Amino acid sequence: MVDIKIVNAVLSSLTATFKAAAKSVVKLQKPELVKDIGETRAIVSTIGFNGVLEGNVIYTLSEDTAKGIVGNMMGGMMEITEIDELALSAIGELGNMISGAIAISLEKIGYPINITPPSVVRGADMTVSVNGSILKFSGFIEETKEIDVYMVIK
Amino acid sequence: MVDIKIVNAVLSSLTATFKAAAKSVVKLQKPELVKDIGETRAIVSTIGFNGVLEGNVIYTLSEDTAKGIVGNMMGGMMEITEIDELALSAIGELGNMISGAIAISLEKIGYPINITPPSVVRGADMTVSVNGSILKFSGFIEETKEIDVYMVIK
Repeated sequence: MVDIKIVNAVLSSLTATFKAAAKSVVKLQKPELVKDIGETRAIVSTIGFNGVLEGNVIYTLSEDTAKGIVGNMMGGMMEITEIDELALSAIGELGNMISGAIAISLEKIGYPINITPPSVVRGADMTVSVNGSILKFSGFIEETKEIDVYMVIK
Repeated sequence: MVDIKIVNAVLSSLTATFKAAAKSVVKLQKPELVKDIGETRAIVSTIGFNGVLEGNVIYTLSEDTAKGIVGNMMGGMMEITEIDELALSAIGELGNMISGAIAISLEKIGYPINITPPSVVRGADMTVSVNGSILKFSGFIEETKEIDVYMVIK
């Protein structure tokens, strides 16, 4: 079983980070324990963590969602029309901020962890395999843009 | 600049792990510093690390290479005809062993790191974006099966 305090720490970190970094309101559905990650959207960001808990924070989003988020991260001054190396770097940095916020929240409730730098994979027909308990947080950014965040605890 | 001792530690760890875990001889070309990872093969395994150095160990291989490796890891008693969840788990485990061996080698030369659990992504037309110095180790397993290993140091 995953401690409910962990679930709440992840939820509040996600909401706060999207608000602060991407000037976006994220609405999250009730988190669920899933058996596998399976198929993903076109962009997958992975960040490992170790310490009292070890595993991965993985988030996946469509190119459209990514364009919206990166545009907001850049201050909304320019429209992002394609996902280039700079945009992927911003998506990685957002993953970094999310995981950093989760790490701070978890430390407060007695689960100190250290995170590693992100890797961002872009492709088609992707599936992700991991090992451990998988908590899935599905949500919408600005009402319409879908995003899924997985907290995998080995 | 990346310390040449790090390059040698990664090289010897790769060779030893493939020999021990996958009963395979891996022949590696001269490692090179590359600007980006760009396009990958059909399977990508990522493992983060932190400590004195932080970054990622990423390896990418075709489905055929994966079938050969997983078959060898299972003791060569059965031919692997498809990449299922079990095979992907074996590929993740191999990544774990490679990164563990790299961590032990790096500790010996004064660069202690901790690794995180692997994530394995399978898909098409994949590119990987990372941030840092990228050391690329290209090689062949059993003469014909291509594999690339990247050591990314932030």
